[in-house]
Amino acid sequence: MSTENQGTPRRRRGSGHPIVTLFTDFGQQDPFVGIMKGVILSLCPTTAVVDLCHETAAYDILGGSFLLLSAVRFFPAGTIHVAVVDPGVGGPRRPILAQVDDQLFVAPDNGLLSYPMASGTVRAVRVITAREYLLPQRSATFHGRDVFAPVAGHLARGVPSERFGPEIADPVRLPIPRPRRDPSGRLVGEIVWIDRFGNCITNIPTEDLEATAAGPTRRLRAILDGREVGPVVQFFAEVAPGAGGAVIGSTGHLELFINQGNLARKWGVETGASVIVDLGHPAE
Amino acid sequence: MSTENQGTPRRRRGSGHPIVTLFTDFGQQDPFVGIMKGVILSLCPTTAVVDLCHETAAYDILGGSFLLLSAVRFFPAGTIHVAVVDPGVGGPRRPILAQVDDQLFVAPDNGLLSYPMASGTVRAVRVITAREYLLPQRSATFHGRDVFAPVAGHLARGVPSERFGPEIADPVRLPIPRPRRDPSGRLVGEIVWIDRFGNCITNIPTEDLEATAAGPTRRLRAILDGREVGPVVQFFAEVAPGAGGAVIGSTGHLELFINQGNLARKWGVETGASVIVDLGHPAE
Amino acid sequence: MSTENQGTPRRRRGSGHPIVTLFTDFGQQDPFVGIMKGVILSLCPTTAVVDLCHETAAYDILGGSFLLLSAVRFFPAGTIHVAVVDPGVGGPRRPILAQVDDQLFVAPDNGLLSYPMASGTVRAVRVITAREYLLPQRSATFHGRDVFAPVAGHLARGVPSERFGPEIADPVRLPIPRPRRDPSGRLVGEIVWIDRFGNCITNIPTEDLEATAAGPTRRLRAILDGREVGPVVQFFAEVAPGAGGAVIGSTGHLELFINQGNLARKWGVETGASVIVDLGHPAE
Repeated sequence: MSTENQGTPRRRRGSGHPIVTLFTDFGQQDPFVGIMKGVILSLCPTTAVVDLCHETAAYDILGGSFLLLSAVRFFPAGTIHVAVVDPGVGGPRRPILAQVDDQLFVAPDNGLLSYPMASGTVRAVRVITAREYLLPQRSATFHGRDVFAPVAGHLARGVPSERFGPEIADPVRLPIPRPRRDPSGRLVGEIVWIDRFGNCITNIPTEDLEATAAGPTRRLRAILDGREVGPVVQFFAEVAPGAGGAVIGSTGHLELFINQGNLARKWGVETGASVIVDLGHPAE
Repeated sequence: MSTENQGTPRRRRGSGHPIVTLFTDFGQQDPFVGIMKGVILSLCPTTAVVDLCHETAAYDILGGSFLLLSAVRFFPAGTIHVAVVDPGVGGPRRPILAQVDDQLFVAPDNGLLSYPMASGTVRAVRVITAREYLLPQRSATFHGRDVFAPVAGHLARGVPSERFGPEIADPVRLPIPRPRRDPSGRLVGEIVWIDRFGNCITNIPTEDLEATAAGPTRRLRAILDGREVGPVVQFFAEVAPGAGGAVIGSTGHLELFINQGNLARKWGVETGASVIVDLGHPAE
Repeated sequence: MSTENQGTPRRRRGSGHPIVTLFTDFGQQDPFVGIMKGVILSLCPTTAVVDLCHETAAYDILGGSFLLLSAVRFFPAGTIHVAVVDPGVGGPRRPILAQVDDQLFVAPDNGLLSYPMASGTVRAVRVITAREYLLPQRSATFHGRDVFAPVAGHLARGVPSERFGPEIADPVRLPIPRPRRDPSGRLVGEIVWIDRFGNCITNIPTEDLEATAAGPTRRLRAILDGREVGPVVQFFAEVAPGAGGAVIGSTGHLELFINQGNLARKWGVETGASVIVDLGHPAE
């Protein structure tokens, strides 16, 4: 990921201004997230704790992982990311500490780190076994507070990764859906994330799209579940209000939308839906 | 606005504890806001980043502007406010940096700063042209991350405003609805904001109300869309639970409510609805 | 509460990194919470302001108090907790400053501190009378901004508690519902909090449960409003997806759930509902 930290200054951990991010499915109506901050600040009062997202869907670990990657690449080196989407809490799944490029991740070992691990250089993954860095009394239901937050707090204080447990070679890595080409040369991908505006983000990266476009990008058309959404354009307002289209979205992937409308709601789109990018004329 | 910073100590930018606020329509279910914080903290790790509001309505730029003003006047001198309600993102609208009194605003030039600019002394408005202060790769859909956040981060580091681009004389300023008097001397205003309790905030300021009240304020009665809400009182609980009334709300404007109820939902109130303040007897 | 600050380092107020938490019913769609942060940071720019919860129900002061206690015990000594659930704002209810164990609470005197005061050592409760620590202009509707936030900001700066007003002996303390035993030896409690996953948290603490269990805990069964939910287990996944059960939740109380489901929604549970823990065979 380091190449994607676009021109921002490098920082080291223990530099006095540690950053810890929180990525969970806890929502914000309960005090769960605030409690995690209390644990972290108790251990390292100078930490800047940043909420990444607390509404990711517990049943969609891979979608959450995509979302996590879209965010972490804008944080500086040394940032500690705490990701807790953990339907197996209290059961046998392992808590892990992963170093990917120059960032640290603390998470349950359930595939939540699949996208970050696939996109960067995995330097080490450890299973967290050192009890002295956890809360002395651990509940069966809230390891965000009892395990992951205190590990982040100790990391923020400068405790080296090696102290938390031994390296493992087999962290859970879910298969990441990659776009493919169909026999007529069209790009075939899927929806991996729907944002709050109803925009539908695909797994088709810019690079693939550029390779597909024989002529100018504008001639590309996006087809969602067999139905044409609209042309691939440069920005939303290039199509009329209420009309559909596709843009290269902020994650660097093709994103389908209705200008000033909500595509996901209007069409009933869900993650996993099929997306085809067509040149609009027979492929050569 | 400086006179409204009620007795709080003055601070200078570059004082070591910069404050950046975020005011957007991004919601909090996606990681958009967290990503902006990553960009800002990458540039200036000591920044306190404060969420003002992320649920303002994209279609109501002027209402958002009222809301923005209601908040910024409680921040210290030198605060950097990032306001991103930006339906025209990616199109030709300009990104601007405005200094109003002793605070800085970074926003799209679409009228979002109308209320702050109308309420304070506009010292300078600049169009942001200096590419070295933006992210090197800019998307067409997320200038909050690629343009506005990095500008705020560089401002927080102490880069002077002049470096970001040339002054302009024509920022978009939307006409602000002011209350008027009808022939019988009644005050006529409108609803400019509905809060989450269903209280309906008008554009009628305290001063106008005091001028209207010949006798004690209690004799004033508030009429919403032609229907009487109740008397103007000092605090909510002065009317019975379930009864309506009006108070001088926290923004310094008349605010209509149902005690322990939700006026906006019960009456179906929307912003723009007409409000009349009547003395309750023939005007002299 | 101090014994529950599990092994975290002690901090003193005025140590340079004060922590202020915010617990309100203001929601996050309006800028109310951001405004409070502006007031606090204006007074003490180095404060870490942490959101505990902004969705507590205004009509359920006691439930809010339970929630507040569940969070504050994970914050370090010297933390300043601002709790504003205040339906009587503007009326005669007093603003208070309470020191419980080694933490400070700023709140309206309406019972919101009942649980923290019942669980710790109350060192002093003061009525806030010193106007020099409030905003000079006070609204009738937003004391979070005008009274409670500036008091917290001044406390964070190191102003001693004594300066804010005289001690009082009669803060409002609501009766806390305690579980009891019925004639057949079963534990009878009630639901005090429903979290966003639909888990139903009871007022039955671990200790009571252990005393009830003659044999292994697994034989206990939880009955909600007369209907059996399922067995008392160690963690959620111990029952099949869709099946019900009870665990010792993160607050240290019995918590009823449906594995990967939403018990509160499915059964229409509300706070106050009766809960019985039965041994599953005739009591001896």
